[in-house]
Amino acid sequence: MDETSLPAQLMRDCHLLGSLPATTVLLQRNALLPWFILVPDTLLADVLDLADEHRQAVIDDCAAVSHFIKEVLGYEKVNFAGLGNVVPDMHLHVIGRRVGDPCWPRPVWGNLEGFEDYPLEQLQ
Amino acid sequence: MDETSLPAQLMRDCHLLGSLPATTVLLQRNALLPWFILVPDTLLADVLDLADEHRQAVIDDCAAVSHFIKEVLGYEKVNFAGLGNVVPDMHLHVIGRRVGDPCWPRPVWGNLEGFEDYPLEQLQ
Repeated sequence: MDETSLPAQLMRDCHLLGSLPATTVLLQRNALLPWFILVPDTLLADVLDLADEHRQAVIDDCAAVSHFIKEVLGYEKVNFAGLGNVVPDMHLHVIGRRVGDPCWPRPVWGNLEGFEDYPLEQLQ
Repeated sequence: MDETSLPAQLMRDCHLLGSLPATTVLLQRNALLPWFILVPDTLLADVLDLADEHRQAVIDDCAAVSHFIKEVLGYEKVNFAGLGNVVPDMHLHVIGRRVGDPCWPRPVWGNLEGFEDYPLEQLQ
């Protein structure tokens, strides 16, 4: 997906990390939680509306990121969601969670207070 | 799935509707929004941890419910999520949303104020 076609609000809120087979991978700028946002290349809004094969490819990418969050970053739990009430372009949230994290046990949306930058070397 | 093995908190909060190929289908008792909860038969907690084929079957069920919400109930948008921070047993939320609904554009969790019962005939 061309970077210029990514939703402007997501580009403001996120770092662009790169591409997986079916999605562009963004990272929410707030480092308090590992909050990845995967953007499929589609004009549809809701992931459950994708054709079966495309949906499987998109969710395979989400599973790969979830695996990374658990196995590499050491989080015990992953929250997974396709909402899109505010940014209508399709995007999937894959978020590492753990007991006692900054908004545990509430969902992150509207509940994550505070902000921390990612150090440059961690992003690289 | 045996009804007695469904998570107790979900059974308190939901009507039991029946079964799809890979999940048991519950309906949140609050009729303010069509909020379905699908429970796969697994001991794992996170949907992205399921083996590929099982995950596809579970998400096919979610897509069928999403289709029902849009085509039959007439909602323009569906929110889809696997969270499980409070009820750890795996369950997927498939929720009809529309502009101007009782908590639009916020996610439903923690934001849906008020309560309405489903009329018995609608449940049947």
